[in-house]
Amino acid sequence: MDVHVSLGRPGQLAADAYQQLRAAILDGRLRPDARLPATRDLARRLAVSRNTIVEAYERLIAEGFAVGRVGAGTFVTAAPPPPRPRRAPPHSPLVPRAIYRAAEPPPDARAPYDFALGVPDPALFPWDVWRGLIARQWRGRRPVVGYAEAAGDPALRAAIARHVGLARGIRAGADDIVITSGAQQAFDLIARAVLEPGQVAAVEEPGYPGARRALAAAGARVVGVRVDADGLDVTALPDDARLIHVTPSHQFPLGAPMSLARRVELLAWAEARGAAIIEDDYDSEFRFDGRPLEPLQCLDRRGHVLYVGTFSKVLSPSLRLGFVVAPGALAAALASAKACADGHAPIEPQRALAALIDDGQLARHVRRVGRIYRDRRARLLAALARELPELAIVPSVAGLHVSAIADRHVDTAALVARARAAGVAVHALAPYYAGRPRAGLALGYGLIPAPKIDAGVRRLAACLHDA
Amino acid sequence: MDVHVSLGRPGQLAADAYQQLRAAILDGRLRPDARLPATRDLARRLAVSRNTIVEAYERLIAEGFAVGRVGAGTFVTAAPPPPRPRRAPPHSPLVPRAIYRAAEPPPDARAPYDFALGVPDPALFPWDVWRGLIARQWRGRRPVVGYAEAAGDPALRAAIARHVGLARGIRAGADDIVITSGAQQAFDLIARAVLEPGQVAAVEEPGYPGARRALAAAGARVVGVRVDADGLDVTALPDDARLIHVTPSHQFPLGAPMSLARRVELLAWAEARGAAIIEDDYDSEFRFDGRPLEPLQCLDRRGHVLYVGTFSKVLSPSLRLGFVVAPGALAAALASAKACADGHAPIEPQRALAALIDDGQLARHVRRVGRIYRDRRARLLAALARELPELAIVPSVAGLHVSAIADRHVDTAALVARARAAGVAVHALAPYYAGRPRAGLALGYGLIPAPKIDAGVRRLAACLHDA
Repeated sequence: MDVHVSLGRPGQLAADAYQQLRAAILDGRLRPDARLPATRDLARRLAVSRNTIVEAYERLIAEGFAVGRVGAGTFVTAAPPPPRPRRAPPHSPLVPRAIYRAAEPPPDARAPYDFALGVPDPALFPWDVWRGLIARQWRGRRPVVGYAEAAGDPALRAAIARHVGLARGIRAGADDIVITSGAQQAFDLIARAVLEPGQVAAVEEPGYPGARRALAAAGARVVGVRVDADGLDVTALPDDARLIHVTPSHQFPLGAPMSLARRVELLAWAEARGAAIIEDDYDSEFRFDGRPLEPLQCLDRRGHVLYVGTFSKVLSPSLRLGFVVAPGALAAALASAKACADGHAPIEPQRALAALIDDGQLARHVRRVGRIYRDRRARLLAALARELPELAIVPSVAGLHVSAIADRHVDTAALVARARAAGVAVHALAPYYAGRPRAGLALGYGLIPAPKIDAGVRRLAACLHDA
Repeated sequence: MDVHVSLGRPGQLAADAYQQLRAAILDGRLRPDARLPATRDLARRLAVSRNTIVEAYERLIAEGFAVGRVGAGTFVTAAPPPPRPRRAPPHSPLVPRAIYRAAEPPPDARAPYDFALGVPDPALFPWDVWRGLIARQWRGRRPVVGYAEAAGDPALRAAIARHVGLARGIRAGADDIVITSGAQQAFDLIARAVLEPGQVAAVEEPGYPGARRALAAAGARVVGVRVDADGLDVTALPDDARLIHVTPSHQFPLGAPMSLARRVELLAWAEARGAAIIEDDYDSEFRFDGRPLEPLQCLDRRGHVLYVGTFSKVLSPSLRLGFVVAPGALAAALASAKACADGHAPIEPQRALAALIDDGQLARHVRRVGRIYRDRRARLLAALARELPELAIVPSVAGLHVSAIADRHVDTAALVARARAAGVAVHALAPYYAGRPRAGLALGYGLIPAPKIDAGVRRLAACLHDA
């Protein structure tokens, strides 16, 4: 028997040996019951350590291609696993539910001038600090045993309670908090826990599609309610709305904060009708003007508000960590829904985040990157005013993007496509409307470095003016 | 102005300083507008580095307790944040849905002799390898930007497709796979994507409560179908079942594998009625006898089987990583449901797992720990036969637990409680039945080290015999 094995890639020697031996078995070069060379001999012939060959043989054995016989050596199995068709059955008579039938669009491709929405800058992520905290969790000194609390790691819940108390004035103890996989899961769990199928839920128009989608998936009839300069028009709420999703700090996507009067009015409306409110506070950590308005959660005395926060903007969406602060019995119900949905959040990242909060590094990080985003925002607003005076910028005081209303004759879809071809990624407002949209654009400054902002806006302006 | 700050805990100096200054502000010892000592002076008085004090001051500023005035120093804010009530409103008129109203039980407490179910040994987790792979993801060389694919990281999906092809003969390409937060989310997403509210779903009786719960949460009428020595009794399936959850490799909790004849019969049943099957292959990586039976997924030619795998048993439940292999259009529908449920899985752990699989370390790990579990299992079976001959052990060939049927007069709930008081954790079979239960016990060997098994079973036997 002669096997040709050629090993090249350092660090991959055992993997190479395994793959070549496996290929030889599969294509018949090594026959069933053939004895493989002694590990010592093959290692010498290939000038590698014997461990490398032992490793390759062990994997062949583990995966059914070879068997070890005590005292005799390693042999190709009598019936190695046959080559398999490569795919699951390509057709199936099973029909998914209508709501899940549309293919998920791929994540947006990056652009040279990228005004992506709601994405923080990975270059600002505290890589070293986070790597240290995560690695510490995996040292195995306090090994995690089995399954954990559905509501989330107690240390993280306590840390978040303190953090949002200080940063946002939110009233919360650890027991009021449920850790979620980003804000999206918070919407999903709230919709599951609060809504019976067929009930009415209200969302802002325009509004955040992920929230609308989660409410619809729970079987709700979702009604869009118009937003004006003060936020959601409370008088336009359908009288039977059971659950209302709002973004009071930084309306998504328009950007205006909800006025205090409107906040009070919304709370009174919910109290009178026994409705629940989702306060989606997705990016208010970055505040650029004035004192923040009191969150609905702070104004709520009767237990109608579920406050949703996320670490996707202050740290990274890739972490998938968010939370809900829930009143009364709802925190326990959300934990129950979380257990049913996916058990609990991964443990080690929760503990790393708790440490990041507890030693003050998160607050410091937010302050540091907030200064950078403040600078980018000022440049973007100045560039828009200078290059695109025909757009009316929507006043805002927080967040990672700004919006601008265009003349209703502007074809923003075409503008966005032209801009993309010119290397500039911006979003039209239209996709955030369920009904008749206003013409306009939303531009994020989370991803684009300050020096590129002017050129990016100039290119965008050229796309509009050349049309 | 005089502030008493005493710093003790090394590594916590800045946090200590911050907390003591904050307390002084909150209780009025430091008045509004008071000037804080110059950082240099305070650092000298406390014999710490100036950076420590700067850090404490920065945090006071970030959290609204102090303001910096250029050229003048740091001052207590005119109106520091008032002390807040500590909790979200304790009462709320909002009533959660009935299905989420029961409080989530806390995770089981550990016992000195712990025969916990379905939990692998954290002492066997490849801590060093995993820490290295995770830390590599956080080096920031390939920074993750923004949101990612709902179906999961493409490299992990490709790695899993190869892995389950080799290890289990599963036919899958990367596009057939959706990454989930453990098997629990797989059940939840499948139920969401396949079932219309009010449709009938079938589960094994006895069976896995998490699966039953996910199907019920999707609005299904869940029917338990009895299990015999060959697995689910296909003739007892309700004729209108749209979705059937089974555990063919290692019936949960009884342990017997589903016979090949029964597998073929189940598939034919589903084909005739257009029903979907969840093949829950939760712990078959640990095989102890004979060749594995062909998975349903391999026998399925028409696209009725959704194969669910998890890394909770071979690695750790704390990772929350599982997957579905879905036929036809269902993979895309599950990705859509995943996007709606929580966006996508955290990115870095997915990439670390892909690397663990691709360089062969997962297969090696499974082989290594499989030998250890094989030894524990043999000891447990021998100890049960010796000490508790009145229990009938259910024959099984795989997994991390065994079950044993007791005489129907045995009060297993009382036995479990007595055993727990004696330091032995075992599970009664009864909670896994929705209807009339059989008396019996399930004992896991994932967590208990081999040398403790004999003593644990002896104690258990004493609890039974003394009663």
